[in-house]
Amino acid sequence: MAPFDIGKLDDVIHGRLRLGIMAYLADAEAADFTELKDVLEATQGNLSIHLRKLEEAGYVSIDKSFVNRKPLTRVRMTAKGRKAFAIYLEAIAKLVGDGR
Amino acid sequence: MAPFDIGKLDDVIHGRLRLGIMAYLADAEAADFTELKDVLEATQGNLSIHLRKLEEAGYVSIDKSFVNRKPLTRVRMTAKGRKAFAIYLEAIAKLVGDGR
Repeated sequence: MAPFDIGKLDDVIHGRLRLGIMAYLADAEAADFTELKDVLEATQGNLSIHLRKLEEAGYVSIDKSFVNRKPLTRVRMTAKGRKAFAIYLEAIAKLVGDGR
Repeated sequence: MAPFDIGKLDDVIHGRLRLGIMAYLADAEAADFTELKDVLEATQGNLSIHLRKLEEAGYVSIDKSFVNRKPLTRVRMTAKGRKAFAIYLEAIAKLVGDGR
């Protein structure tokens, strides 16, 4: 990859909030909606929009259920998401200073 | 800084093309418009828009002149831009894997 190949930066991941979600899930494996909302200091609406975009790309899976009659939304990074995130990390590292 | 403080990611720098410009200038110190256009595979219009945004933030200075009657546009990273880029690099490194 050429060092300044910004096309390699996956736009689905690069958006700030989505990048935060992916970075958190890369560590945590799975997270509740509320947990993500708190950690990323996001609004409910904004987080929903960006989770949907990640889900549409197949990078996360979203599982909705009820626990004690309260809705629980669990978010997981998929294998496809993990692969895409690894490629993103490589591209951003190359772009911002690695190996030049 | 909290590891998932995505607010620390300077939006002016984070945009893909602007990030490419900043990364290139961080190395090159100064660059011609045509050089940036080629390296980043950007269109003239798109590059102009994002250079202006970086200029408005005070992160680059743009110097227009004529050489052999041909317009020459030189772009430089300012001291303010260099400082902002350093902060950005620290934030992105923290977010995507450093020190967690």
